[in-house]
Amino acid sequence: MASAAPRRTKFILDEERIPRSWYNIAADLALAGIQMSPPLHPGTMQPIGPADLAPLFPMSLILQEVSTDRDIEIPDPVRDAYQLYRPSPLYRAHRLERVLDTPAHIYYKYEGVSPAGSHKPNTALAQAFFNKQEGVKRLATETGAGQWGSALAFAGAVFGLEVKVYMVRASYDQKPYRRMLMETYGASVVASPSMTTNYGRRVLAETPDSNGSLGIAISEAVEDAATRDDTKYALGSVLNHVMLHQTVIGLEAQQQMAMAGERPDVIIACAGGGSNFAGLTFPFVGENLRGEASYRVIAAEPEAAPSLTRGVYAYDFGDTGKMAPIVKMHTLGSDFMPEPIHAGGLRYHGMSPLVSLLKEHDLIEARSVHQVACFDAGVQFARAEGILPAPESTHAIKVAVDEALEAKERGEAKVILFNLSGHGHFDLVSYERYLQGALEDYEYPAERVAESLASLPKVPA
Amino acid sequence: MASAAPRRTKFILDEERIPRSWYNIAADLALAGIQMSPPLHPGTMQPIGPADLAPLFPMSLILQEVSTDRDIEIPDPVRDAYQLYRPSPLYRAHRLERVLDTPAHIYYKYEGVSPAGSHKPNTALAQAFFNKQEGVKRLATETGAGQWGSALAFAGAVFGLEVKVYMVRASYDQKPYRRMLMETYGASVVASPSMTTNYGRRVLAETPDSNGSLGIAISEAVEDAATRDDTKYALGSVLNHVMLHQTVIGLEAQQQMAMAGERPDVIIACAGGGSNFAGLTFPFVGENLRGEASYRVIAAEPEAAPSLTRGVYAYDFGDTGKMAPIVKMHTLGSDFMPEPIHAGGLRYHGMSPLVSLLKEHDLIEARSVHQVACFDAGVQFARAEGILPAPESTHAIKVAVDEALEAKERGEAKVILFNLSGHGHFDLVSYERYLQGALEDYEYPAERVAESLASLPKVPA
Repeated sequence: MASAAPRRTKFILDEERIPRSWYNIAADLALAGIQMSPPLHPGTMQPIGPADLAPLFPMSLILQEVSTDRDIEIPDPVRDAYQLYRPSPLYRAHRLERVLDTPAHIYYKYEGVSPAGSHKPNTALAQAFFNKQEGVKRLATETGAGQWGSALAFAGAVFGLEVKVYMVRASYDQKPYRRMLMETYGASVVASPSMTTNYGRRVLAETPDSNGSLGIAISEAVEDAATRDDTKYALGSVLNHVMLHQTVIGLEAQQQMAMAGERPDVIIACAGGGSNFAGLTFPFVGENLRGEASYRVIAAEPEAAPSLTRGVYAYDFGDTGKMAPIVKMHTLGSDFMPEPIHAGGLRYHGMSPLVSLLKEHDLIEARSVHQVACFDAGVQFARAEGILPAPESTHAIKVAVDEALEAKERGEAKVILFNLSGHGHFDLVSYERYLQGALEDYEYPAERVAESLASLPKVPA
Repeated sequence: MASAAPRRTKFILDEERIPRSWYNIAADLALAGIQMSPPLHPGTMQPIGPADLAPLFPMSLILQEVSTDRDIEIPDPVRDAYQLYRPSPLYRAHRLERVLDTPAHIYYKYEGVSPAGSHKPNTALAQAFFNKQEGVKRLATETGAGQWGSALAFAGAVFGLEVKVYMVRASYDQKPYRRMLMETYGASVVASPSMTTNYGRRVLAETPDSNGSLGIAISEAVEDAATRDDTKYALGSVLNHVMLHQTVIGLEAQQQMAMAGERPDVIIACAGGGSNFAGLTFPFVGENLRGEASYRVIAAEPEAAPSLTRGVYAYDFGDTGKMAPIVKMHTLGSDFMPEPIHAGGLRYHGMSPLVSLLKEHDLIEARSVHQVACFDAGVQFARAEGILPAPESTHAIKVAVDEALEAKERGEAKVILFNLSGHGHFDLVSYERYLQGALEDYEYPAERVAESLASLPKVPA
């Protein structure tokens, strides 16, 4: 039942309440006796150490990647840059609750207030800063839908680094606005596969009209960084240090839920590579690990690329060119190419090793959803709350709405918290297709996944 | 010189500090002995009363249009809807100051946080509420670049009103994202001139391939509202009640400047029809009128449509079809068609009567700027502050940057406040043209204006 307290819609923190440290879940996993599997070298299949990663990443990020300290200080220049958009608001979705006629209380953390329009700058700014500090002049990265590329372009402008973005050809052609945004921030953007790298040229020689893929673009960016002294590589998801930087989301949300005087019963975020999911939920999962709480936590993923719900937990390549470190994760196999769903940020064969580990130990749940139902929920949300959600974020909305309707059936005043990871201003073509009834769902492609999984790397026991 | 106080980037108000009343500058103008000229009937050329406006507007808005009460209460449901994005943040532009190497302190109020991406929902929500309260089922309006149409579509979704938008044909074809956003909110959008109205059919009969204009679209929306019992008309700028609703911007900014411990020396906003300018500046101009302060206030307008700096102050039509009331304002003549500059929201031949009156009495200044220089400033701003500004807002940025550079020359620690009225997410094609060097400036078309001014309505003395 709704409380009698004055109705508040938005919980805003003062900028001095931006967290001073990121939360590293590896610390609480270690205390709980849960072991992480080390990354392996893609050539030797042996565990790799910091030195192996040095051509790709600055040492400060490599140390974060393997740290088991619980709190890792956010440097002042990064907190200072966070102030451009953080703390992000936490909303109580009064209007959506009314439309659903549910006794549930629905809260959402809104990361679309960042200049790039999603949670991605939380790690982009940190990565740009640590690279700059170690004398790096230039960053190479890949982008699919363009959220991550925009974030790194913005971060490069803030800290004075050149940024080169390999943008998946299909997106480069279909999402010109995202490309233009990166260029406005001063980044250089090329369609991938490109003629700029050996790997790109190889792919184009075999498939001149290739539409590209995230796996190909990662390989190109990794090659670019590995072959230039002034350049490092930046990844927008999957890796431990990326999950770490995103925890500002959950750390703020904990303060804001306290302001609201409620504790969430269930916490939801969409998961592609896992970064916005980790960002919101890890600080709460930490409370669970320490025995201080018992939140239910749900990852929402697309039925077309359901790594957590239907993939295997195994060592696999993160990229198509097999140049990046091999990590243990939930995967559909690195050769698997998801159908062209409109949530480009969720079209990835793998999943963050940390998120995968939590799933493997039943510390989180996962649920897969179809895209048309997600757009149903997304449009309902936009008309109730005003904000147009990114297609990725509609997956979280869909699961939140389902939980709220279940609460209604049971007459439970459940408290739901989800992450609205970004806005959909650059995704309106997808909304138009939805409104025209032209959007289709894709069944889980069991056979193609089985084929892809047959070629997992053979890792020594 | 920068103060020694801890460096703050963002000044955020709690939602209970959303103003409880709008500020009506007509009250302070009356006390200062400054008379407003009444609107005239487009047929009889005689002053019109509330009853004449009743086919177009609900009585509550008509009363606001003529009120001289200083404070007009914001109804709870409107304040409640404002909470979806208000209070909007006030930023100190530390990074831009550093880039400009200026001793000036630059502050900006950011209205792009609204769901529609600009200040327009401040009045759209109010208009939708008052119409709903008086039993109106449907609103008709026009939109040029699409900012206003998006805002009214959003407001219609919030208060449960049908919204019909006549969108200027050129924008309809060139800005599909804005149309899709309106449709996602549930509005019905048609290209203007359309076959839906008599006036539209007349225009199309004469000019089958007409690109439309704001003046034509206004005439279509006015006709739609005047000829349907269930429908009223909504205008996003120019009128007194629109200026009134926008004053939440300045009323919040006054609180936020107090938080920052500074008073602005100069306050700047761009002006097309005048609504974001009025919104930020009227509460400050009110202090000037009451003798409590002496802020400099500057309206930034495009060289291609400089009504305040080069137009005449006279009675003129607001629309092409000559159906809307005639008002006294700065105008370039209702037949004048501005060049296709990228700041679509500033392509209007007239100006708010209230803003015009202030200019006529030397209570504000005006300055016209060329679009390429505005984009220079806009890109500089985006790379420093992260936020991509709307092309309209870059006019305010350009004037603010000029003031900051002048302060540098003089070694003055001047405090500058400007309105960043919206984001440019739907204007990236304009940025691309700028980056390609394909943007051109248009000289002030003195001859065309003279021609247009020759056909001002003949109003009895």
